[in-house]
Amino acid sequence: MPSLFDSLKSASAGEWTDYTRHDFVRQLADGSLPEAAFRHYLQQDYLFLIHFARAYALAGYKSETLAELRSAAATMSALVDTEMKLHVAYCAEWGLSETDMEALPEDKATVAYTRFVLERGSAGDLLDLQVALAPCVVGYGEIGRALADDPATKRDGNPYADWIAMYAGEEYQEVTVEAVSTLDALMTRRGGPGRMPGLTETFRMATVLEADFWQMGLDAA
Amino acid sequence: MPSLFDSLKSASAGEWTDYTRHDFVRQLADGSLPEAAFRHYLQQDYLFLIHFARAYALAGYKSETLAELRSAAATMSALVDTEMKLHVAYCAEWGLSETDMEALPEDKATVAYTRFVLERGSAGDLLDLQVALAPCVVGYGEIGRALADDPATKRDGNPYADWIAMYAGEEYQEVTVEAVSTLDALMTRRGGPGRMPGLTETFRMATVLEADFWQMGLDAA
Amino acid sequence: MPSLFDSLKSASAGEWTDYTRHDFVRQLADGSLPEAAFRHYLQQDYLFLIHFARAYALAGYKSETLAELRSAAATMSALVDTEMKLHVAYCAEWGLSETDMEALPEDKATVAYTRFVLERGSAGDLLDLQVALAPCVVGYGEIGRALADDPATKRDGNPYADWIAMYAGEEYQEVTVEAVSTLDALMTRRGGPGRMPGLTETFRMATVLEADFWQMGLDAA
Amino acid sequence: MPSLFDSLKSASAGEWTDYTRHDFVRQLADGSLPEAAFRHYLQQDYLFLIHFARAYALAGYKSETLAELRSAAATMSALVDTEMKLHVAYCAEWGLSETDMEALPEDKATVAYTRFVLERGSAGDLLDLQVALAPCVVGYGEIGRALADDPATKRDGNPYADWIAMYAGEEYQEVTVEAVSTLDALMTRRGGPGRMPGLTETFRMATVLEADFWQMGLDAA
Repeated sequence: MPSLFDSLKSASAGEWTDYTRHDFVRQLADGSLPEAAFRHYLQQDYLFLIHFARAYALAGYKSETLAELRSAAATMSALVDTEMKLHVAYCAEWGLSETDMEALPEDKATVAYTRFVLERGSAGDLLDLQVALAPCVVGYGEIGRALADDPATKRDGNPYADWIAMYAGEEYQEVTVEAVSTLDALMTRRGGPGRMPGLTETFRMATVLEADFWQMGLDAA
Repeated sequence: MPSLFDSLKSASAGEWTDYTRHDFVRQLADGSLPEAAFRHYLQQDYLFLIHFARAYALAGYKSETLAELRSAAATMSALVDTEMKLHVAYCAEWGLSETDMEALPEDKATVAYTRFVLERGSAGDLLDLQVALAPCVVGYGEIGRALADDPATKRDGNPYADWIAMYAGEEYQEVTVEAVSTLDALMTRRGGPGRMPGLTETFRMATVLEADFWQMGLDAA
Repeated sequence: MPSLFDSLKSASAGEWTDYTRHDFVRQLADGSLPEAAFRHYLQQDYLFLIHFARAYALAGYKSETLAELRSAAATMSALVDTEMKLHVAYCAEWGLSETDMEALPEDKATVAYTRFVLERGSAGDLLDLQVALAPCVVGYGEIGRALADDPATKRDGNPYADWIAMYAGEEYQEVTVEAVSTLDALMTRRGGPGRMPGLTETFRMATVLEADFWQMGLDAA
Repeated sequence: MPSLFDSLKSASAGEWTDYTRHDFVRQLADGSLPEAAFRHYLQQDYLFLIHFARAYALAGYKSETLAELRSAAATMSALVDTEMKLHVAYCAEWGLSETDMEALPEDKATVAYTRFVLERGSAGDLLDLQVALAPCVVGYGEIGRALADDPATKRDGNPYADWIAMYAGEEYQEVTVEAVSTLDALMTRRGGPGRMPGLTETFRMATVLEADFWQMGLDAA
């Protein structure tokens, strides 16, 4: 039986391709992405991560088992401690300071995506929330691995090689495996066939908003 | 196939009996309930109705179809306009003014029950919320009809005859029929077998808290 | 002392002008707006109204007084009963059926704006929510009146004359007066000077997203 | 100027005394508390801690600054990792296994208190939530220190000496100092004089429900 994630991805195959093979991604692979595009993306990703951590906090509130609560707490800590500090360190290499990033206005693409996810989580349940998060969490792993596996990806002198290596790396790949299995567990506990239309639409919209997030980067260059 | 409501009721058969055949109910039937008990119950029920209307507002926020949203709006209006005004008029016959009731401290039984329902709705989804509401909405209809159908119920000179007639009446009976069918529709759209343990526990706890609400009335006499 | 609304409007004066004097608005005034632009706007406004009604439902849940709860219930009913039916009737004149509109995909501008408002209300309090709603509720009244008062506005043969008349009309103007006074009452009860930066940013972003909503209409033509 | 916490405590002076000098507390001090009472309290406190961690998750979702978000994440982790493991280890000394505790039905006093706190946080804002949490967080520190400072408290052979030492200890005392200063910071950022009646009622009710939680322990013996 396919995982819930695979079913959702199949149902939004076109949107998924638009997102995972977006021009932004292709240009990361061959190193041709304008630095201004990447820098804008990194800045907005900093603001994005804050709302993403809030989404996991919401998942903690919505937890029904101690295991779920612990998992949400661990992800929140990983995001606000480890991830954001790595992100800040990485941004510093690109000449972006944390003080600058905190003061940045949110791009509309950032607003649309983050608030859509949070609203799904608030108005729906933990399954709606995790489905809204999946295109980001699992998609980045799929993109990272695809670029790392593709012989055409530029290695030497690609300024984005570290970014690709991070998402292709074992540590992040394990995060995606766990996210896929969390979705299946939630579907068993809170789901049923009647939920597929709603979950499919949530997944589709989140995927579209992810593609818009790449586009926002390109448009800034 | 049994309705979701019937399945939930069967799974909490003991708690359901404790609630629907509570001493408070028996004393309503034979007219022996101390007036102080009924008066305290009426006062707290006024405060309860406010939170109950908030629960339907929450159902409106959580709606996924225009029909659900319209149904929530209609119930909210029915509660804060019609029901509360009837309640206030009825309370006036028992010597209770609205100003007095608004200033009343909430009894702990009122806090426990109303906040439990609201929290289920906030942390869960529309199905969790409607299941938490069902023991009240459907139970009152069942109690009203049972008392009206029971030849042992005192008719002449029973100070509680109007109360019984209201919940046994056709208008309220239709409300319960609709509530039962709403649960089935939600179970089809958002449910599955994995949800039964959680919904069963929600229904059971709400039923226990309803019985406590009767007991609070008795304890006040 | 200026109203909270006036303070917020002054603090976002540039964004407010961009919204209330947007090209879409100018073209409504002189009748030059392409019908395709208006039709797309109307369709998305139908979807917008559903989430708008959900926002008032959320306001009902967040109410702390019976008066607030009744006001939220009345607005919800006005939106899902009166407003949406008027909207549907009006759309029918423009060749748009309700069935068509319910099946429409949400535009990203609709997603961004509605989810931003709902998230402010969910994560913040009733004051945050009402501030997020104000640019729409009060702004439409200001736009309607400005167009109606402007001698340059085309009257005869302007296909948008009814739209202007609706928002310039006494009934809608009363809605805006009440919204302004609700904000002041909430500021007194739940506010203080420390809230101004947060409320200002909420108001500013909602105003920007309103202007984007007009732009979405223009872009569709 | 008094802290917000001190103002709230003064406004509920009687309820605060009932809570902090409850018979349960006195019997902890002189070692006379029946073990069955303490054991029941410990079991329910385990269930309480789960909802308490959910309340801090909700605080994370409601955060408006990265500092608030990090603080919520740190408290959640402290609760679900450190605290609950200490609690489980401590309970094991009293013959209570984690498996047993997870399977326990929630006492009504646990339901009332935890759901009241969560609902304040969901329907209100971060300040409402932190005020609802304060009687627990700060009160335990005050109780621990008062017992530790009181020469009448039994030291030798008091089975509850460890419990007293934990809450009187420097580590927990720092938690309370931080909680008091968080309240002041939130009052500055989100408060004003108009909020005092609502916050006072929230604090008062949470204090009453804390006293009920002690009483639940006594009633079980």
